Amino acid sequence: MKLNRVAIIGVGLIGASFGLALKERGLADEIYGFGRNEDNLKKAKARGIIDAYSTDITKVSSSADLVVLATPVGVFVEIAREISPFLKKGSIVIDVGSVKGRLVYELESIMPEGVHYVGTHPIAGSDKSGIEYARPDLFKDARCIITPTEKTDPESLSFILELWKDFGCNVELIDPMKHDEIYGAVSHLPHIIAYCLVNTIGQIDSEYIRYAGQGFKDTTRIALSSPELWRDIVVYNRDNLLKLLEVFEKNIEELRRLLEEASSEKIKELFTKAQELRRRCGNLSS
Amino acid sequence: MKLNRVAIIGVGLIGASFGLALKERGLADEIYGFGRNEDNLKKAKARGIIDAYSTDITKVSSSADLVVLATPVGVFVEIAREISPFLKKGSIVIDVGSVKGRLVYELESIMPEGVHYVGTHPIAGSDKSGIEYARPDLFKDARCIITPTEKTDPESLSFILELWKDFGCNVELIDPMKHDEIYGAVSHLPHIIAYCLVNTIGQIDSEYIRYAGQGFKDTTRIALSSPELWRDIVVYNRDNLLKLLEVFEKNIEELRRLLEEASSEKIKELFTKAQELRRRCGNLSS
Repeated sequence: MKLNRVAIIGVGLIGASFGLALKERGLADEIYGFGRNEDNLKKAKARGIIDAYSTDITKVSSSADLVVLATPVGVFVEIAREISPFLKKGSIVIDVGSVKGRLVYELESIMPEGVHYVGTHPIAGSDKSGIEYARPDLFKDARCIITPTEKTDPESLSFILELWKDFGCNVELIDPMKHDEIYGAVSHLPHIIAYCLVNTIGQIDSEYIRYAGQGFKDTTRIALSSPELWRDIVVYNRDNLLKLLEVFEKNIEELRRLLEEASSEKIKELFTKAQELRRRCGNLSS
Repeated sequence: MKLNRVAIIGVGLIGASFGLALKERGLADEIYGFGRNEDNLKKAKARGIIDAYSTDITKVSSSADLVVLATPVGVFVEIAREISPFLKKGSIVIDVGSVKGRLVYELESIMPEGVHYVGTHPIAGSDKSGIEYARPDLFKDARCIITPTEKTDPESLSFILELWKDFGCNVELIDPMKHDEIYGAVSHLPHIIAYCLVNTIGQIDSEYIRYAGQGFKDTTRIALSSPELWRDIVVYNRDNLLKLLEVFEKNIEELRRLLEEASSEKIKELFTKAQELRRRCGNLSS
């Protein structure tokens, strides 16, 4: 499964780690990088993550066997449109974004005849971004969701599936729309809530933040995540998020009503229900 | 600052760690424990946390120089009423609860002439409860808020302040009402939100929990906390929490409105504001 040339579009935490994982396994002859920030590309080259770079995206993509979209989700479509006329026949395009859903069908529809798109989502991001945190084993033991459609080329799917497995991922195939329902609930909604919780403290009295203990720190850690990246994700997945927010708001309202009534027993019931479900994903407190 | 006899009412994580911290420093001749669960008291005695125990609370408290209320907050007043006729003149009563506010004034008013109450809140709890997790250094480097009132006996205040310092705490004196405003915001509100977030997933599809990544786990870790303990805390601090929930709900509603409009730039602004404030309490991701 050797690749001649790979193009990484967006050399951040995920893009750079992808490059390092390829390098470590000797899976690519040459890795080209594209990004907005030339300094960052220089650093990536100096660290041996990429072999060459250009700020001309068509140059980087046109000779690649595999193109990896690793920018913030919001520019995938624009980039796909820009590069599609120049893509090599037989090449594969993947993205590593946190939203799938309609975006997968849109990207798929942009690909020219003979170019195969596969949507992938390695769950390996964090509140830390940038190549400083990139490492070849970032994907080891991480979950990676692949979201084939009925049009996905079986050979390309199989190739990409093996590649992520080779990187150490636990790969799972999920329908693109289902993916966004699930990750809207367990990832995108928590991000929105964390950002809103921090802003609430800011509006009450930002000085209170100095009393924050481990509970607050853990609960809001993901509010450290890149605002640009997460803006794109929540906007793309907004249909699911609007439904989820409605359910969440009802839970908050219910709790508020019970507090107003000082309904101790019912509050305890709600907390117990949450505790029981939360136990299913383990106690990973520090 | 040697104590003859100390009574620990409620031998859980905090109560037992308090006992161990006293023992380690040889600060008490004898420690008596009281609790609802005799098995737990037996374990505490076997581990050398307490020297003796009884399920008769007046027996445990009547000869003590220091009584430590370490049960869930909801039963402090009831216990204080029960033991107050039997307390020794010159003894000190402290609590270690997460709410202060009116509760401090109430407990203070229950004390008989010559018995001195001091409200304290060591920020050393966690989602783990029970003596299994108790350790003598639980309070080391923890913050401990002491909430004197104008009626607090200065000598008792000074004694208790030195005791917590001796346990390794960073002690800070704060007005009882202010304490509840601050901890309502940075601790009690996050707990409510974490419980509500987990219940939201439960209502959407509890099977989604298996896709939970580190972000979800961190954000909801505190939903593992004791429902009984946290029910008491949020009910006691409900006036502050109702105000805080209102501000939080406005933030969620604003975000929902921006999502409906797909106002990318404004969403990014809100996320950036949160990220900046969150940075002030450090990145403690694992």
